Parts: sequence; structure tokens; C-alpha cells
Amino acid sequence: MAEDSPAAASPVSTPAPVTMDTLVSLCKRRGFVFPSSEIYGGLNGFFDYGPLGSELRRNIRNAWWEDMVHRRDDIVGLDASIISHPKVWEASGHVGGFSDPMVDCKESKQRYRADQLFFGAVIVAGEKIGYVSVLEDAGMQKEADEQANDMKRKLAKQGALEPVALQDYTNAKPEEYDLIPSPATGKPGSLTAPRDFNLMFETHVGAMRDESAVAYLRPETAQGMFFNFKNVVDTTRVKLPFGIAQIGRSFRNEITPRNFIFRSREFEQMEMEYFIHPEADWQKEHRDWINWCKNWLISIGLPADKLSEFDHPKAKLAFYSRGTTDIMFNYPFGVQELWGIAARGDYDLQQHIKHSGKALDYFEEATKTRVVPHVIEPAVGVDRIFLAVMCSAYYEDTVEGEKRIVLRLHPRLAPYKVGIFPLVKNKPELLARAEALCAKLKRRWNVFWDVSGAIGRRYRRMDEIGTPFCVTVDFDTIEKDGSVTLRERDSTKQVRLSEAELIKELSRQIDGY
Amino acid sequence: MAEDSPAAASPVSTPAPVTMDTLVSLCKRRGFVFPSSEIYGGLNGFFDYGPLGSELRRNIRNAWWEDMVHRRDDIVGLDASIISHPKVWEASGHVGGFSDPMVDCKESKQRYRADQLFFGAVIVAGEKIGYVSVLEDAGMQKEADEQANDMKRKLAKQGALEPVALQDYTNAKPEEYDLIPSPATGKPGSLTAPRDFNLMFETHVGAMRDESAVAYLRPETAQGMFFNFKNVVDTTRVKLPFGIAQIGRSFRNEITPRNFIFRSREFEQMEMEYFIHPEADWQKEHRDWINWCKNWLISIGLPADKLSEFDHPKAKLAFYSRGTTDIMFNYPFGVQELWGIAARGDYDLQQHIKHSGKALDYFEEATKTRVVPHVIEPAVGVDRIFLAVMCSAYYEDTVEGEKRIVLRLHPRLAPYKVGIFPLVKNKPELLARAEALCAKLKRRWNVFWDVSGAIGRRYRRMDEIGTPFCVTVDFDTIEKDGSVTLRERDSTKQVRLSEAELIKELSRQIDGY
Repeated sequence: MAEDSPAAASPVSTPAPVTMDTLVSLCKRRGFVFPSSEIYGGLNGFFDYGPLGSELRRNIRNAWWEDMVHRRDDIVGLDASIISHPKVWEASGHVGGFSDPMVDCKESKQRYRADQLFFGAVIVAGEKIGYVSVLEDAGMQKEADEQANDMKRKLAKQGALEPVALQDYTNAKPEEYDLIPSPATGKPGSLTAPRDFNLMFETHVGAMRDESAVAYLRPETAQGMFFNFKNVVDTTRVKLPFGIAQIGRSFRNEITPRNFIFRSREFEQMEMEYFIHPEADWQKEHRDWINWCKNWLISIGLPADKLSEFDHPKAKLAFYSRGTTDIMFNYPFGVQELWGIAARGDYDLQQHIKHSGKALDYFEEATKTRVVPHVIEPAVGVDRIFLAVMCSAYYEDTVEGEKRIVLRLHPRLAPYKVGIFPLVKNKPELLARAEALCAKLKRRWNVFWDVSGAIGRRYRRMDEIGTPFCVTVDFDTIEKDGSVTLRERDSTKQVRLSEAELIKELSRQIDGY
Repeated sequence: MAEDSPAAASPVSTPAPVTMDTLVSLCKRRGFVFPSSEIYGGLNGFFDYGPLGSELRRNIRNAWWEDMVHRRDDIVGLDASIISHPKVWEASGHVGGFSDPMVDCKESKQRYRADQLFFGAVIVAGEKIGYVSVLEDAGMQKEADEQANDMKRKLAKQGALEPVALQDYTNAKPEEYDLIPSPATGKPGSLTAPRDFNLMFETHVGAMRDESAVAYLRPETAQGMFFNFKNVVDTTRVKLPFGIAQIGRSFRNEITPRNFIFRSREFEQMEMEYFIHPEADWQKEHRDWINWCKNWLISIGLPADKLSEFDHPKAKLAFYSRGTTDIMFNYPFGVQELWGIAARGDYDLQQHIKHSGKALDYFEEATKTRVVPHVIEPAVGVDRIFLAVMCSAYYEDTVEGEKRIVLRLHPRLAPYKVGIFPLVKNKPELLARAEALCAKLKRRWNVFWDVSGAIGRRYRRMDEIGTPFCVTVDFDTIEKDGSVTLRERDSTKQVRLSEAELIKELSRQIDGY
């Protein structure tokens, strides 16, 4: 064990920002995330979480549920079905309004989101000589200018070329549709006008295939809390303010899924509807929830300096919205939304009151009046947290002259909490002792048993998948005082502990008690 | 606290078998299970799990995952998407063969499963005078005979009426279709021939709505383990025999959902594929898994005498099947399948090898050969366990002359583990002490805080939702030794413990360590 002796220096960190390529490749290589049904070529926008990914996803869910539901007195859980009555989505506005503008290329049969397809006129010496188009991207301005330059050269135009003023296709005038080239073919004449495309997946329930049988896969879990509001109030002893929380799959038929698991078609949400009195100070409640969410993200290991806030401009909010603030995360592909905290007034309950004819209200004992509560909604995706966690945890550092990859995952989130190693495998007494300890730790935590290779190599394997602790059973354990070596992942520091001390220490660091 | 003093007699149990009506009503009243989107009239075959139901469902999942994945060295987890490449379901045979025979009533527009619609000839004095039809039910024979008697009377036939020999509609001869009355109208002439109805929910992925975009909601989670087999082998260090486990929603468009959450259209599965060497003793492995599953069910509180085994007759098995044994449970509506343990040979991997063209095999170090493993598949539904658990836990007994309803849920499964009560609420010191203890217990378990009403009433509330332990902070706690009262639900026995003893005892009983 010389290579990891307690006297060794701490690792030298090289916090090079991780690229998406590196992450996607690690996720694939170590069994975190695979493309869905990969042996059939995959399915765009769908992912399968492997042995380690399923544990990390599960740990994110459990941490949220424990902190959001169990450790608070004012929030209860819900687990609604993915398919519900289609009227839910009429009431919520999703049937009418949940759509993206889409544009077709008639020639290539490609489809684009109109707001992600950018175009601009090519102007040489003040004269418009044509149009170029590009797909939204960090380098799109450069690409558009190069295309413009090519056009100028091909058409042999003389004079100054202006930088292309890009705008998205939803701003194109009808007379421009035929002039803007398709990004697929580079030629104009094949793009359609933008039209609305509903993002809900549709199916049919029951044996009929007609309109009466249409149902939708939920595009969000939130509606479950609204249409079950009365049931929850009637069957529990909740008092305003109180929340209903839910974790579950949602589905959006995104036209262009992208950025790995950031925008996929099937994803997992953790949403909570916090109902407050109509006369409560909603701004304070809103602010409190933004803070709660931010602190929670920091508590599971996201660095505060990668988090920021974005207030949606008033002009862009829906008419009923009081305000929405997004907690943003600095992903490798840019600063993007992680957790949205919306103050939605009583819009959702009122919509369901209108469409169902039921009284979705709350009887206030003190004033003997019925009120329709307002709501604050913190909504976050498990997969976006998963990605943010992986981005933040990835480090390359140098331990005793050797480069290592280490995932500095919070112990609560790490797929395996402890690696347990007998120093050698040909000593039955030592092996038996390690096995007994392993069985004991497995009662409490997900533990990885590893007997093969040098201890240093075993450490590296655990480092790369984020296992925070390794325990080695060695000759001293069986010949002297029964103590074992506990090695911490990030610092690589080692201490010797008795079995009782070990369990106490692991419990403190993993479970927090 | 006189009514629950430690000296009180244990409750007198009256183990009257619980009816489905009682259970469904308790589930609704106490927030375990609601009909999905109830304010819109519900949606047949879909359910929402309320505050207590979501906790019970979650605890069943967690108990299974901990025992199946974490506490074993040979099983890893998976969390695949619900929608996957449509070729998966061609390979698995679900596109071609996953169907129920269905019959329409052209007049009423009702649809029935042909194998649940029974018919028989009415024979009087040896002469066939017509047909009757009934839907499958415990009382269907009686109903058919009554219908036959009515027919005899109406047609004024004389002579002995034979008991109706019922058979299901899949056995009807084409010339009989027009003679068998529809159960909806009671008149013949409107039933169609039986035809196959695929049970998979269909949807479209991407912007197109044509055949090329068709995808399905998974009807089982099992295929995820097969099409990810190679990915799991390549990214982990599993060695044969090993298993891949998954928990998740599945969807089947049942024509006649029934028996509450027993047969619904959206349900949650816990499946595990255990891969064994082609030359391994599959019968032993199969038997081992049947035993494991049975023991697990008993470990979470199902009574052994409600469990039985059913071996599927060889003649009814698919050609590739080696054998399937179901662990059956004695539900209020009869003995029905709870957990199926199937020995499926290498059929599934071979099908995916054929359809994907990929080598889904395993390299055996010892023999330096590649083998396609065989598989044992224990597959169970969370909701079927949920229902079996509720049926088994429901008791009505008498405590000190007063009737109570008690859910004897295993502490691992109980939604709340502990109820914590300050004896009075107008004594700040006592309240503060109880709050501090509550906060401490909440770090570990889901705890219910209750300050209102007599202690006896608070106990009853906890009994009815299955909370196994109640802790009362009283005057002795603050004035004497700091000890509290721990009351056990089933025996109603009480003991006084110090805070440290309390946590140790709860830990032992709830977590098992």
C-alpha cells in the first residue's frame, strides 16, 4: 500500500473544464448512460441509464424526496399515472397551446424548429443579393458570414459585404419563405411556412382508435397535483401553506432533442406545487423557494459559482404569471435552465374548476371561508441535475505523479458508497474477515466488493465512478487490533479505524447522522 | 394516558377477511389510491397514488431494490426509457403476438375480451331453444341458468331444462355468432367474430405521423435488460451467473381492466433477468429464485398461508419456455398471480441477436469461449404487491372495548414509521422538547407530527394508516429523566426509553440494523 500511504501528498488538481464529449464518453464507458436501444441504432431523444446511472438517478430522487417531503412537515407526496383523462390537458392549455413552431424542408424531408433556424439577407454594396440560413449554434454568425462571402464570390459581386444580420425563421415574412435556402440542401424554394406542432405524445386508450379515445403522455407531472388537490386536502391534515410533491417521467416530442440528456423526449421530473393563501406575500414565498432550491443544489455538491438566476422578463410571461425565476447552471454548452420557480397565481386550480365543475378550494377554519389557493411551483428535471452533477464532479488530477480521473460526487449521490478490498485474496482468514465486513456494510449501503489487482488500481476504479470511500482489510486487521484502513476519494487521505468507528464515520458522512 | 397504559390487555383480533369494497374505500378515504383524474370522471384502468400510497409504493420499490440489487453481489440495476426503438418489440414478438381476442357488440358499441365472455345453449327436453351469454364472474353459472329459465318461460317450453354448459366466446363456431345474445342488449345478432387486439399503446415519435414514426409504450420492462445486455457486460465486471434488475412503469391497453389496481392499464413492474451459463442446472436456479421471491414476500409481511405456487402446464407454455411457476396470492377476489418466475432459455437474447445483427454474448475466461446465456426471469408488479400487502395488513380488532381499524404493515413498508406526540400543546417546554426529538427522528425516517386530540385518538389515526410506532413526550420527559413512551401498533404495548435507546430500538425494528 506504499503508493497511497497516509503520508502521501494530496492530489494536484487540474480543473480543466470538462467537455461534453468527455462526459458522454465516460457515461457510456462506465455504464452511466447509454443511447436508448443502441443495438438498433438508438432512438433520438431517448436514453437508458445503466448500472451506475440508475443508482445516481435513484440517489438524486431519494435525496430530493427526503429533503422535500420527509424532512418537512408541510409537504406530502403524490404518484399519479402518466396517462390521465384528456380533459386535464384541455384545462391546462396543453392541447391548445403546447407547441413549437416547425418548418419543413419539402425536398430533404428534414424538419426544424423555426426558432432554431436562423436566416439573414446577404448585402453587398448596399444591394441584397440573396439569403443564407444556419442552425442555431455558438458559431452560427461566423458560418453565416462565410456562406455570404461564398455567395458574393460565386455571383462575382463587387463591393463591401455587410455582416449578416441573423434572425430566426419565425420572423420571416411570407414573401421570404421561397428565398431562404434550406439548411439541408443549401438551396432556396423548399422551406414551408412555420406551423405549430404540439409537443404532446398522443395515444389511444381502450379498443377504439377514434377521437373519443385519444389520450396523452403527460408533458409535465405538475397537473397531477392540481387535479388531485381536493383529494389530498380531504384525505390528509394539511393546512395552508402546504405543498404536494411528485417525481416521475414526462414526455415531450421535441423536434430537436439535444445536448445529451439535457433536452430529451422522455425525462424525469421532480415538481412541487406549494399552495399559499391568496392574500399571502407571494413574493416572499417565491424568493424563499428560490433560495431553498439553490441551497439544495449546493447541498448535493453543485458549486455555487456555476449557479445563477434568470428572471423571466415580464413581457414574456403568460398573462396569469406573477413571475418566474430560473436557477441557471453553467453547462459545457452554455448557461442553461436547471430549475424553474414559477409564481402562477391560482390559474391552474381555476382552470380545473372551470373544466371539471368541481370546487377545488380550501376551507379556512380561522375565517370560516373557502379560498382558492395560489401556487409557487419549483420544477426541476432529474436528468438536468444528473448532468450538472456529472459536469461538476469530473476532475482530472495527479496523484503521486500519476494522472487520475475522479468523480467528486457527494456521498449522498455516489452510486457506490464504499469499496471494500481484502488486501490479498489468497489468505482465507483475511478474505473471510473482509467478506463479513462487506455483508455488514451492505445492510446499510451500496457497497462494491473488489478482490482483483493492486490496491492502487482498485482505488483508481472507484475514483473514476465516484465512490467516496474505500476500506481495506489487511494483515494488521486480522493479526493486530481488527482495525481497517478508510481511504477518502478526493484527498486520498487514509486513516485506521476500528469497525465501530468506521460505521460511525461512514454514517456521518453518507447519511449525515 | 390511562386508556393505553402498559398494563392494558393486548387487542382482541377479529380477523374477518377484508372485502375489496372495504379496501378500496379505505384507500380512497386515507389517501392511498385515487381513481386517476377523478374530477373528470376517472379514466378506466388508471390510478393515482396519494400521499400515503406514494410512500407505500416507494417503500415497496426501495425494499426490493435494496434486497435485490444492493445486498447481493451478482445483480446490477438498469433504468431504461419507456419508449424505445420499435424494432425491440418486433424482436420480442410483441408487435406480432401480444394481443387479446376481442369481440364487439355492433349495437351498443361495447367491447369485450372474447375469453371473458361466456355463452351456452339453452336446452329444454333435449331441444336447443336458444343461447344465453354472461361475463366471466364467480356467479356466472347461476346467472346463465336464470337467463335460460327466463327463456324457457317466455317461449313457453315444457320439459326439463338442462344446466347451461358455458364456454368462452373464442370457442364459438362462426354459425353461432349471430345466435349468441350480446351481454349489453340481451339480444342476438350484434356480436362480431373474435379478432386480435394488440395490447401495446402506440404513439408517434418525431414530427411525422406515418408508419415510420410509430413507437410503443413498453408493455414490460424486461426487454430493456436484453437489449442492454452487451452494454452492461462491457461496462461492469459482472461474471456469470449475474442479473440485471429494473423498476419502472409499463403499459398494457387491457380491454377489461379490473379488480382495482390488480389489472390496470398503467402499472409498475419490478423485473430481474438472471443470466446463467447455457449448461447450468436451470431447474435448480429456477427453484432457487422461486424460493427467494417467496421468502422475500414473507419478509415484507405477507402471510405464508396466503401464498401458493402454480406451475404452468407444459402444453400451455411457449415453445422456447423451460417452465414458469407463479407465486399466487389469495386476494379477496380469488387466488391470482402475484409473481411469475420464468425459465426462458436463451430465446430473448437470440431474438435480439437475430433482429439487431449484434453479438449479444458473454466471453467465458475459463474456457475462452463465447456463450449466449440462458435466463431466469422473476417478474412482479409493484401494484399487485401493494394490494396483497394492504389485504394482509387490514385488521379490525378491539382495544379496551373499543373497535379499531389497524393496518399491520411491516415497518419497512409503513408510509410513516413513527408518530410523535407532545402530550399537551400548551406547555412550551414540552412542545419544544417534542419538536427537537421530531426533527432528530426526521433525519432518518418519515415521521408524523401530531399535537391535536387525546393521545388515544392520535394512536387510532396512526393505527389506521399503519404507523408501527408512536412516541409520546410527556411531563416525565421534561421533569424527570428525559425518557419517552414508545408504543407499538399491533400489541399496543408501551415501554419507556431514553432517547438513545429509542433511536437504537427504532433503527433495529425499521432498518433491521
